[in-house]
Amino acid sequence: MRICKSKKVIMNLDPIDICPKPAVYQRSNGRESHLYDVLSFKDFTETGAYYFEMRNIRYELRYLTDKFDKIDIKRKKCERKILTYLLENEHIIDKKISDALDVYDSDKIGLYDYAALYAGGSVISTPNTSPYLVEHATIFLINMNFLSDPKSILQPTTLPGNCFAFDGTEGRVRIKLARKIEIKAVTMEHIRLDVDRSSAPREFRVYGLPHQNGETPEVLGTFTYQLTGRPYQTFQIVNNDTKAFEIVELHILNNYGKDDYTCIYRFRVHGNYTEY
Amino acid sequence: MRICKSKKVIMNLDPIDICPKPAVYQRSNGRESHLYDVLSFKDFTETGAYYFEMRNIRYELRYLTDKFDKIDIKRKKCERKILTYLLENEHIIDKKISDALDVYDSDKIGLYDYAALYAGGSVISTPNTSPYLVEHATIFLINMNFLSDPKSILQPTTLPGNCFAFDGTEGRVRIKLARKIEIKAVTMEHIRLDVDRSSAPREFRVYGLPHQNGETPEVLGTFTYQLTGRPYQTFQIVNNDTKAFEIVELHILNNYGKDDYTCIYRFRVHGNYTEY
Amino acid sequence: MRICKSKKVIMNLDPIDICPKPAVYQRSNGRESHLYDVLSFKDFTETGAYYFEMRNIRYELRYLTDKFDKIDIKRKKCERKILTYLLENEHIIDKKISDALDVYDSDKIGLYDYAALYAGGSVISTPNTSPYLVEHATIFLINMNFLSDPKSILQPTTLPGNCFAFDGTEGRVRIKLARKIEIKAVTMEHIRLDVDRSSAPREFRVYGLPHQNGETPEVLGTFTYQLTGRPYQTFQIVNNDTKAFEIVELHILNNYGKDDYTCIYRFRVHGNYTEY
Repeated sequence: MRICKSKKVIMNLDPIDICPKPAVYQRSNGRESHLYDVLSFKDFTETGAYYFEMRNIRYELRYLTDKFDKIDIKRKKCERKILTYLLENEHIIDKKISDALDVYDSDKIGLYDYAALYAGGSVISTPNTSPYLVEHATIFLINMNFLSDPKSILQPTTLPGNCFAFDGTEGRVRIKLARKIEIKAVTMEHIRLDVDRSSAPREFRVYGLPHQNGETPEVLGTFTYQLTGRPYQTFQIVNNDTKAFEIVELHILNNYGKDDYTCIYRFRVHGNYTEY
Repeated sequence: MRICKSKKVIMNLDPIDICPKPAVYQRSNGRESHLYDVLSFKDFTETGAYYFEMRNIRYELRYLTDKFDKIDIKRKKCERKILTYLLENEHIIDKKISDALDVYDSDKIGLYDYAALYAGGSVISTPNTSPYLVEHATIFLINMNFLSDPKSILQPTTLPGNCFAFDGTEGRVRIKLARKIEIKAVTMEHIRLDVDRSSAPREFRVYGLPHQNGETPEVLGTFTYQLTGRPYQTFQIVNNDTKAFEIVELHILNNYGKDDYTCIYRFRVHGNYTEY
Repeated sequence: MRICKSKKVIMNLDPIDICPKPAVYQRSNGRESHLYDVLSFKDFTETGAYYFEMRNIRYELRYLTDKFDKIDIKRKKCERKILTYLLENEHIIDKKISDALDVYDSDKIGLYDYAALYAGGSVISTPNTSPYLVEHATIFLINMNFLSDPKSILQPTTLPGNCFAFDGTEGRVRIKLARKIEIKAVTMEHIRLDVDRSSAPREFRVYGLPHQNGETPEVLGTFTYQLTGRPYQTFQIVNNDTKAFEIVELHILNNYGKDDYTCIYRFRVHGNYTEY
């Protein structure tokens, strides 16, 4: 009986060619059969199959042992990596929290605001824009007494009503920055706490002017404030030239559905300081 | 020598019945012995035990290889799952931090407060309750000059002394909400920073009245502020009817041990806005 | 043919001495060879090597199975541990965030400040120190109008300009605490938001005096504010005696490079309250 003609061998265990190979499985009628199902004890002994079977077992055992050891090393390495990470995890969390609080403590976003009152910025005009009447505003749950002043938008706030509300859905505020800067980004902020947030700015355009009596305003960008996003949203100004501006005009194009008025809580201008 | 009578076989390796089974272990005197301890070389060869032993080894090797491969697949899957989680972990942390800061930025708890000054709420009376004398308060480390005004409790604060202090351990404050609402929850806040926190409110009851000159006050709930909990604690009002109230009375029942006075830092009323 | 003289055996599988041991590998010309490479079928049968080889395989298989089971138990345990941790991880993050926010809400650092205006502290003098002129300060981007008042350092702030600015790089502020305390720590705070942070205090010394007209000031410590660290930095006072002080003098020794002026945003004094 020949056993080395079998087509299927468990695996190629070794570079050494070990024919005659013992057949481990032989297919008959689509089923897998084992060597011992087809070789009787007598055949097994007389053909010397046990020699090859034993050799094969030896190779397989060696192969399995090696594979097992290799994978066990990988497993240990991976576990160590994970456990090390988890040990560090609490430090990572603590660090992230303290970093986030330090940024929050820095006027919430950690960016210097050249339009802010604290920097020396000011509102110079609100072209074609009427501040909303305070008496009306109160009935919308928000107490706007003495607050609908455009310079509200140049200072920090967290409370409903501390905004500049103007008639309708479109309006402009012209701001003199603390100094002439290359504008890199602007931030629009609206509070979350309001019962009715439909008065929040939606699309807005930002213009720059070199000086108060300067040339035609230059469009720096048109942006959309996302009502479902974070309260403070910073938008990058993408202009490759390094032109500096002292005057910025914020043009609110529309709001989130309130017809009567629109509220701006805070608008900021960030940039590089340049000496002129 | 018969070896198929042994009681103990390592494992049931295969559905195929492979009797005569080689005895792997035989108990003698309570100890486990190995086949090779009880079968001499001569026995091993002459009984043909090696045939069965070899078959058994083959099955066990196959079983172990299969088991190993299956477990290795599970291991890889689990490791991938963990590593994926850890990769996402930093995003989870960042998201949780920014969400928490956004809530904190929304009057600390992210709930609109219909009692707050910002909403239009006001204190209308403090029945049977005497504001604590400012001159006395100073000696308890807290500078209460011009602060022991009941409307203090309707505005944000983080600093010691910015509270309404009243004589004794029991007191009432009647508040007119910004508008008539279905009251869903109230929030009691006390700062952590005080050296002596025994003046904090402990148990308190909340009443609702439909109008300023309304019917008998209706009890909305009795709650306990936990001194060891978070500074701001929100309590749900469980009433299934949808009755709306414009007036809320806060009744402090006792405090955490200070006999002379009790301090309320902030009390808030949350709810659904309903049009009447 | 003797096979038990081989030097190398795969592993010591069992306490039982199983000589004659089958040689698994034999080195010839620096290469590893297998038993089956050196033993012919005839040798294998005639020497009875198969008996020992089989026994060895049996031991190795048993050893590998045991090892595999043990490691699999360890693996499962480790995976469970990791998965349990990850399940708890979100709670850990939430807890850390809310704890950090509660501390932040407690005057940012959660320590009572006996120098603060809220506690009843006050600035009693600024020996040999001239407040910086407001008109000059504005040109450095910071609007210091009406702010360069030493008592600024006894109250919370987050905005640029809300500091006490004094001429030059060295200055003193003498503070009367809310009451006589054992001083345990001091906190120096400088905001991050400034465009130019070179006016931040660098090294400073803290003195204690028992009373306003007391003995010679006692040095409590000399510290360095790290400009790259957190905005608020707390320094422990290491003095083993339990001497109490009512007056504290802050002596700024130098700053981070600004020649004209130095800004102190906040200085705090923490300690144990003691009854005298």
